Amino acid sequence: MRARAPASSANLGPGFDTLAVALDLHIEVEVELADRLSVRTTGEGAELATDASHLAARVAMGVIGHDRLSITVSSAVPVGRGLGSSAALAAATAAAAGAPDPLAVAAEADGHPENAAASVMGGLVAAAIIRGQPTAVGLPLDPGLSFVVLVPERPLPTATARQALPPVVPHADAAFNLGRMGLLVAGLADHRMLVREATEDRLHQAARSPLFPEASQLLSGLLDAGARAVCWSGAGPSLLGICDQGLATEVRDAGETLLAEAGVAGRAIALRPDITGLTVGGQPWQPRQSAQPAPLGQQ
Amino acid sequence: MRARAPASSANLGPGFDTLAVALDLHIEVEVELADRLSVRTTGEGAELATDASHLAARVAMGVIGHDRLSITVSSAVPVGRGLGSSAALAAATAAAAGAPDPLAVAAEADGHPENAAASVMGGLVAAAIIRGQPTAVGLPLDPGLSFVVLVPERPLPTATARQALPPVVPHADAAFNLGRMGLLVAGLADHRMLVREATEDRLHQAARSPLFPEASQLLSGLLDAGARAVCWSGAGPSLLGICDQGLATEVRDAGETLLAEAGVAGRAIALRPDITGLTVGGQPWQPRQSAQPAPLGQQ
Repeated sequence: MRARAPASSANLGPGFDTLAVALDLHIEVEVELADRLSVRTTGEGAELATDASHLAARVAMGVIGHDRLSITVSSAVPVGRGLGSSAALAAATAAAAGAPDPLAVAAEADGHPENAAASVMGGLVAAAIIRGQPTAVGLPLDPGLSFVVLVPERPLPTATARQALPPVVPHADAAFNLGRMGLLVAGLADHRMLVREATEDRLHQAARSPLFPEASQLLSGLLDAGARAVCWSGAGPSLLGICDQGLATEVRDAGETLLAEAGVAGRAIALRPDITGLTVGGQPWQPRQSAQPAPLGQQ
Repeated sequence: MRARAPASSANLGPGFDTLAVALDLHIEVEVELADRLSVRTTGEGAELATDASHLAARVAMGVIGHDRLSITVSSAVPVGRGLGSSAALAAATAAAAGAPDPLAVAAEADGHPENAAASVMGGLVAAAIIRGQPTAVGLPLDPGLSFVVLVPERPLPTATARQALPPVVPHADAAFNLGRMGLLVAGLADHRMLVREATEDRLHQAARSPLFPEASQLLSGLLDAGARAVCWSGAGPSLLGICDQGLATEVRDAGETLLAEAGVAGRAIALRPDITGLTVGGQPWQPRQSAQPAPLGQQ
């Protein structure tokens, strides 16, 4: 079978490990029975080893239970840049392999239920782990918003980014992020209410800044160029400018200039949200009633 | 002038210092010019000193600039029980005194922008402080939800409840609350998606439990009686069961029994959300364009 899943941008500032938005950049996977394992990849991530260690191979073998598979991956999602490529690949592969619950498979494979949920459900999601199970809900997303992504050429492994986080935080900082997330959820539902403070964060971005010293100036530049709010995309190094749709091209162009001025090799892309999520055989993926864990809500 | 504001329940589990819902229980305040200060109160809080130290007197004098005022307060909101009585009283008094921005006055007087925002805007709100200014947004609230409140007779001063909070928390606990708040916002918008885990919290409820040892068993009892989710109301001691409207009477009755069985003097009340918020002269309060801080969004 053939399945397709969108990239995603997680955290969105205050919503650490919780919020994610699906973006119009996709990974397509085909899984077929064959005499022996083969993995063919084109596009982003084509440099990775195409053996049994490839994430698509591991996911497909886990779902089907053997390795006599021909797997074809075609990806437009940069790897290791904070755009949820692992979650999208795992979700598309799980669906192409016939998994009844691609979200659970992708969340398990990737470790990030919010990226997996965005790739499966599309749109804006909030996710959490309840008793070991990924649980996700859709949240309203204003169709008038676009997302400009600055994608540096150098990857920033999520594990490295995670090690930069402090083990404890001031109680006031935990409360700070809750307040900002409230403003953000309302602002993403209605762009007129999106204020730049809505993406402020005290849980991860500052701690990760030493890993990407130019981030702060690039984010400021996106705001100056007209983005309503800015943040890191996932664990970085990609950076996000949330824009009114009509300004996306302008902000994207400014982003190209900002990268050049900062001496950061990379590119700026303007993306619409993906509101479809996972598709299988060209049709939106539908949960099988019996296979869905009770708390999984999909809007 | 005469103004009226609803009570509110803040935090709602994970949304510490952020979320609040306005409830159908009100404080009415009339402020008139007079020869000298007088404060008359009926209903809840009538035992408080009716001199210049009364919150209504302090707010009205602050707005108008002198003390030649006759102030009449009629309240159905229990004081010191975690139902936002101070914020409601301050909001109604500020509006009755002609303040252009009752939210700012009430947030300043009460110290809790989320309670003040719920009392002014009605419905479900998220609030935060941005550069010293309270900023609030409305969030969707399913009209099919009711709120059963267990109101113990003994008050629990907010200052005491706040001292119980730890100065630092594990980073994972801060992330935990963000995830739960995402689920909660979706569940309050659509009751079918409200799972009991959505009100789980690691930032304040457990730390405050020694102040109200019976809370845990009362909350469990509300769930057993049919509440979809349960939590402390504000800093307590009131406890909240969030129910489908059709079950509210049943859960309320169970709440009375639970209080009696636990030996906690108090009462259980079933309340609908208040979706109107602050009214002045019987009309919903409308912000004057010029007096509103830019980031104040009202849906």
